[in-house]
Amino acid sequence: VTETSSPGDSLLQSLRDIVGAQYVLTDTHDVQPYVTDWRGRYHGKASCVALPQSTEEVARIVRRCAAAGVSLVPQGGNTGLVGAAVPGYPQDAHSASAPAPVVLNLRRMNRILHVDPVGNAITVEAGCILAHVQNAAERHDRYYGVSLGAEGSCQIGGNIATNAGGTGVIKYGSTREQVLGLEVVLPDGQIWNGLRSLRKDNAGYALRHLFAGSEGTLGVITAATLKLHPRPRAWCTAWLTADNIAHVLQCLARTQSLVGERIATFELLNRRQLEIVRHHIPDLRLPADPEAPYAALVELTDTDGHARLDALMERILGELLAAGLLRDAAIAANSAQRASFWRIRHGISEANRSHGMGLSTDVAVPVAHVGAFIEEASAEVLAEWPQASIVLVAHLGDGNVHFIPMFSHADWAALPKREETADAVRARVHDVAARFGGTFSAEHGVGFVLAGELARLRAPLETALMRRIKQALDETWLQNPGKIFS
Amino acid sequence: VTETSSPGDSLLQSLRDIVGAQYVLTDTHDVQPYVTDWRGRYHGKASCVALPQSTEEVARIVRRCAAAGVSLVPQGGNTGLVGAAVPGYPQDAHSASAPAPVVLNLRRMNRILHVDPVGNAITVEAGCILAHVQNAAERHDRYYGVSLGAEGSCQIGGNIATNAGGTGVIKYGSTREQVLGLEVVLPDGQIWNGLRSLRKDNAGYALRHLFAGSEGTLGVITAATLKLHPRPRAWCTAWLTADNIAHVLQCLARTQSLVGERIATFELLNRRQLEIVRHHIPDLRLPADPEAPYAALVELTDTDGHARLDALMERILGELLAAGLLRDAAIAANSAQRASFWRIRHGISEANRSHGMGLSTDVAVPVAHVGAFIEEASAEVLAEWPQASIVLVAHLGDGNVHFIPMFSHADWAALPKREETADAVRARVHDVAARFGGTFSAEHGVGFVLAGELARLRAPLETALMRRIKQALDETWLQNPGKIFS
Repeated sequence: VTETSSPGDSLLQSLRDIVGAQYVLTDTHDVQPYVTDWRGRYHGKASCVALPQSTEEVARIVRRCAAAGVSLVPQGGNTGLVGAAVPGYPQDAHSASAPAPVVLNLRRMNRILHVDPVGNAITVEAGCILAHVQNAAERHDRYYGVSLGAEGSCQIGGNIATNAGGTGVIKYGSTREQVLGLEVVLPDGQIWNGLRSLRKDNAGYALRHLFAGSEGTLGVITAATLKLHPRPRAWCTAWLTADNIAHVLQCLARTQSLVGERIATFELLNRRQLEIVRHHIPDLRLPADPEAPYAALVELTDTDGHARLDALMERILGELLAAGLLRDAAIAANSAQRASFWRIRHGISEANRSHGMGLSTDVAVPVAHVGAFIEEASAEVLAEWPQASIVLVAHLGDGNVHFIPMFSHADWAALPKREETADAVRARVHDVAARFGGTFSAEHGVGFVLAGELARLRAPLETALMRRIKQALDETWLQNPGKIFS
Repeated sequence: VTETSSPGDSLLQSLRDIVGAQYVLTDTHDVQPYVTDWRGRYHGKASCVALPQSTEEVARIVRRCAAAGVSLVPQGGNTGLVGAAVPGYPQDAHSASAPAPVVLNLRRMNRILHVDPVGNAITVEAGCILAHVQNAAERHDRYYGVSLGAEGSCQIGGNIATNAGGTGVIKYGSTREQVLGLEVVLPDGQIWNGLRSLRKDNAGYALRHLFAGSEGTLGVITAATLKLHPRPRAWCTAWLTADNIAHVLQCLARTQSLVGERIATFELLNRRQLEIVRHHIPDLRLPADPEAPYAALVELTDTDGHARLDALMERILGELLAAGLLRDAAIAANSAQRASFWRIRHGISEANRSHGMGLSTDVAVPVAHVGAFIEEASAEVLAEWPQASIVLVAHLGDGNVHFIPMFSHADWAALPKREETADAVRARVHDVAARFGGTFSAEHGVGFVLAGELARLRAPLETALMRRIKQALDETWLQNPGKIFS
């Protein structure tokens, strides 16, 4: 130790010794992508970014940071929407004297470790990109059940840490339900090897379910064993339009009764959402009835390649039409048409981002209350912010509504207090959801963006329980500070 | 307080004030069924049995016991196999001076609170019998996914506390996967109301997954909201026989690939198991090939009432026969035959209990290793205890093998150290499972019977994490002492 070295220099040198100098980023330009969320809304700060290549390196980094009293922010693809992977933000939440966190980005830990098609399991490092896991499963004639917009860049570790949802939850469940086993580096740097590939294990508390969804606040997920499913061999994709939510809900309930386990997707979009997508993807054509207030993208899948899903879908649509629940419907006649239906759904994020300031929310309510929730939330938001329009995209089978008050860029720029307005709009939507027994976070997590809402909307006893667990596992609170807990 | 009342008298009087005198049992004869497990193997002791009728009564009992420093054993149908609901046993685990626990039996809290067929959810009190939940779902054209032998007497609270499995896990998951929300009385008597019916909720740590499977060591589950599923409208049940486990595993894997989500049951039985069942149910006839080393009960279900599952099953069996994987097979031609197939499976528990001393185990290994596990475990057990025979019944799709070294009553009585022998046999089987990455507890839980095995077979770091959680939520360790933790 030289006279001139600060504690920060000493930590940096240790991290360089652990992962190699080229894998510790400190240059402002290099660090920038790791301290900003992908939408560019939140700009944090970090002491450095460390890029470990192995669980042992992660453990050494965690131990070294713990010894130095420096906090850690684990990061995967950095595609989250609630700032859970953004370090040191908001700045005023961190005391000026505390050193900025170390970002622990796991992208170099991206190996597929084992695929077991007989046992229907795959073991991967946390930095594997979701699409690579999907592809590895497919190469073994199996299927990984999670699909979402960011699948080309989000990583499995982040998926697990945030219990990511997506469009396949209705059939396969959220990421949590895929997790058979985990490897986690604990806050003291010990490695918990819980990488079991068992379909059932009742030997004590379900630790994997505690780490899943904990957003890096209890340790760093370094590897996982995930469920695989038989690969679908038949698809049928349809586009439905309806006059109101009540009709769409009846379509959902009847379709579930008729073909239950075959429903792989049931996504609701409103007319405003479709207008925005069409505006930003000019060559896009809607499969049916562009003036309909609501549309639904419905997909059936089956592992039986002989299954005649088209005939089944026709029978379903016939019943729904006869019951007066549909305005119109179209079935994709081939894989090109199927892709074009999905292009509408997948175009949403980019289109909304270009279009204006969408104050996206991630509400879930009991499925039966989706219509009433939308009606009340729309009325309350528009009464106070009449310049907004209501954009809706929902995983309807999960009761999960992305209720998005959308402001034009001009209207948004004209608002005097933008950050406060964003909080106020979201709070209004969350309050309506809470009245219906709903949640303010269905699939995106809490991060720091919604930490205040967790404290505000959940019973003090519930958050106190979470704090007791946090304290029991991370007594110095150095793991991803400011996330989940405000 | 009179001079003559002991602290125990004072507690009893308080409990009588809370639930009514007739619902506090102290008479030895009355208490007996609540301090003995249903197989009659473990005989504990209790200060009394309290039978509350409401969550508020449970909370008051918990607070009163906490104040008196008396431990609590929550109890449902008392149908468990690992002694998790037996109070005060083994006696030597409790200091002579400590008062015996209070048994908190929830059978009077047996109301169906709400059924939501649109949202596919049911809310029930913890004392509801599983079969009543199944029936309530069916009355609303829905299906509850858990089926097990004790369903006529086990209770939902116990199912959740032990994360009960059964024959439907391959399709619907364990009890844990059904739990959308919980109400729990915490060790300090506060009531956590987490009775949400949301399909998705990512607002902080998944507390419901911590209480599910915690066997009453973290609090008392008083109510639950559970997932429902569309009701199956078509069934096909088949009886397969095969020469060896490898062939049965290939049958399973091919059937999964072909018809994935339709497989509702895939149960393996060996010849010895079938001999015992036939011996004890003389009028029972096997559907095919009584001399086959292995048989499998396979059931497909479908929510589509038009599904031609018989034709599908015939196609599958044709492929399996052509591949040389089957000895023989039979398809149930009608519901009476289907019932007779199931009668074989459901006759197992009673038949084994009558037949001798079955040292049942509850192992799970990765599915691909089931055959090797059975081979090695059989060889090791028979080498040391040649008087035993190996009885097998397995939920094969889950890799969950009830590997049962069976001793005749006479052979068992002749053993000098029976309790030690039982432990030694089980430990041998568990060791083999552990070599294959398996667990000693797949669906029955830990209780006190396997608490030593948890400490022995799991990494110290893993059990230390569990203890930290236990300490954080139950700092006086008065909730179901001696269970899970030895």
